[in-house]
Amino acid sequence: MPVISLKTPSAAYDITIASGLLRTLAPRLNKLAKGRPFIVTSPEIWGLWHKQVLASFKQAPTVLFLPSGEAHKRLSSVESLAQQLATAGADRDSLLIAFGGGVIGDVTGFLAAIYMRGIPYVQIPTTLLAQVDSSIGGKTGVNLVAGKNLVGSFNHPLAVLADTDILATLPPEQLRAGLQESIKAGIIRDPKLFKYMEQNADAILKGDAKALTHVVTASVRVKADVVANDERESGLRMILNYGHTIGHAIEAATSYKQLLHGEAVGWGSIAATHLGLSRKLITQAQSDRIIALILRYGPLSPFKATAAKLVALTSGDKKNRSGTLSFILPTGIGTVQIVRDVTQPELLAATESMLALMRAGTGQP
Amino acid sequence: MPVISLKTPSAAYDITIASGLLRTLAPRLNKLAKGRPFIVTSPEIWGLWHKQVLASFKQAPTVLFLPSGEAHKRLSSVESLAQQLATAGADRDSLLIAFGGGVIGDVTGFLAAIYMRGIPYVQIPTTLLAQVDSSIGGKTGVNLVAGKNLVGSFNHPLAVLADTDILATLPPEQLRAGLQESIKAGIIRDPKLFKYMEQNADAILKGDAKALTHVVTASVRVKADVVANDERESGLRMILNYGHTIGHAIEAATSYKQLLHGEAVGWGSIAATHLGLSRKLITQAQSDRIIALILRYGPLSPFKATAAKLVALTSGDKKNRSGTLSFILPTGIGTVQIVRDVTQPELLAATESMLALMRAGTGQP
Repeated sequence: MPVISLKTPSAAYDITIASGLLRTLAPRLNKLAKGRPFIVTSPEIWGLWHKQVLASFKQAPTVLFLPSGEAHKRLSSVESLAQQLATAGADRDSLLIAFGGGVIGDVTGFLAAIYMRGIPYVQIPTTLLAQVDSSIGGKTGVNLVAGKNLVGSFNHPLAVLADTDILATLPPEQLRAGLQESIKAGIIRDPKLFKYMEQNADAILKGDAKALTHVVTASVRVKADVVANDERESGLRMILNYGHTIGHAIEAATSYKQLLHGEAVGWGSIAATHLGLSRKLITQAQSDRIIALILRYGPLSPFKATAAKLVALTSGDKKNRSGTLSFILPTGIGTVQIVRDVTQPELLAATESMLALMRAGTGQP
Repeated sequence: MPVISLKTPSAAYDITIASGLLRTLAPRLNKLAKGRPFIVTSPEIWGLWHKQVLASFKQAPTVLFLPSGEAHKRLSSVESLAQQLATAGADRDSLLIAFGGGVIGDVTGFLAAIYMRGIPYVQIPTTLLAQVDSSIGGKTGVNLVAGKNLVGSFNHPLAVLADTDILATLPPEQLRAGLQESIKAGIIRDPKLFKYMEQNADAILKGDAKALTHVVTASVRVKADVVANDERESGLRMILNYGHTIGHAIEAATSYKQLLHGEAVGWGSIAATHLGLSRKLITQAQSDRIIALILRYGPLSPFKATAAKLVALTSGDKKNRSGTLSFILPTGIGTVQIVRDVTQPELLAATESMLALMRAGTGQP
């Protein structure tokens, strides 16, 4: 059973990746905290998994629901959940359980950070994206109209329990979208993972348990390693944003509705790869290999937005400190570099190349 | 110029209590942080003090407004301010300045905790209550319908600048209400402050600068000392809640509209004193002396609520861990004790005694 320990200046906890974790949840939680458990989940997830979750509890935990979708990742949801916690008698010793995908994890982690100025919580990610990325590292938060994740907190869980049984039931498009974050992990820091994903694409995309567990474990290891070295994103951790600056712009341009997060990251990674190539940080062959792998785990849904619009939207991204445009660019397969002087024309050209590829690949305008 | 240094496991900063701090604000901020300043204040405060504040700035800082009053201490205000920050281009290096009373300080400190997952801020408290209590110690947050301060964060400022010039312009009822927190500081930890407030009541209540500076400084010292020893309120810091459990219940029963916070604390302190007396933790003479001082700095506004209602409202208070009723009770002048086994009938009796005193003193039902 792969267990990855993550230690930062503010927290130390285990990420467990295994089959059967849901069925043994109550004794696992009991080892972590004694407080009364409150599960935050979506009606869909709960409908699928409540029997397995409840099986190990003597007394059923209180369940709070957050509707699915990025549109609900807002302070109003946090307020509503906090109000429900207070009404149900949750106190400082209570334990929150984030049982769902990235939105559930981000909202619940933030709720745990601010309810009564902080109560403990556990992450049980139920999408591939959440298992390999968003549940790890303590970044929590919600969106503003002005942009994604603009309010939030660094708040680590007591543990992350990634039950791989869940992956077998994922819709194919969610699986593919989540795998874009694993490809990102390979590009930025793990050439072996990148190669494994090249060589085992069929098995992974078919949902083969062994192959997926390998990919999840390797991806988590990359993220945990980066976060352990730079918890608060003062330097190294920025590399996890590979593909995310343009990715966030795409999500904003499409009102967070049209694409899955992983798909937007896939497109953003392609733009970043073009930028790396135009700066001659990578070779044409390396660029081809990266883009081929991203598309192999596609198709990425197309969208309508001009390059000018996307570039304009990046200036509101919080990764840009004091007006400079910082980008994470590949310098090979498995290494990246933080480039702080990217100009608007350069970015525009790379974004145009990405859009051209989209038009060529899909026949959409 | 009294400067009190506060050092906790997570922060170290100075609280400066002096005349003329507003007029020299820009160079003071510049020593603390280089980022672009954003002031959060109320239209009233800004109307009174903007000339003094702006005098020392070469480039005027951006000003965001929060309407006055406890009703605006909500997540919706935080969201609106965060949205304004994002639109105005505030980034991770920007500096927030909380310029106002307790509500402004609590909301701005919380906004600083969560905007882009945390940016620095400075407290410039403009009420006596904020100078002696709420600006010190890093507790920030907002109210839910279910109760006061139920969401928030521990988030210390880079500095607290308490300009005593401001105190001379305070409405008398604000001054009196704020002084209830100083009386509390005396009761829980500083018999000299308690005695000073007994002996110099006339000068203090007339707004004498020297007497008020003495009281503010001594009160801040009590709070800073307690917070330094127990930042996260795992033990000692609970003594700062003296008078606050019933005080919060009174505020909730009157929808946070009828009484100033200090007045509610004054009534709550009277109830706690009755509880201490009924447990024989203090003598009748000590109880009389405490209640006399609280009333000397009155009158405390009367309110309508039954003891049963107030007791019921305390069970939702976050100070009650896992169902037990914890109270801070006096054991003398300058010493208190945390009592964890207070029963409902006891609490009901003490609350009745407080209400009887209110009826006797004011002729109100």
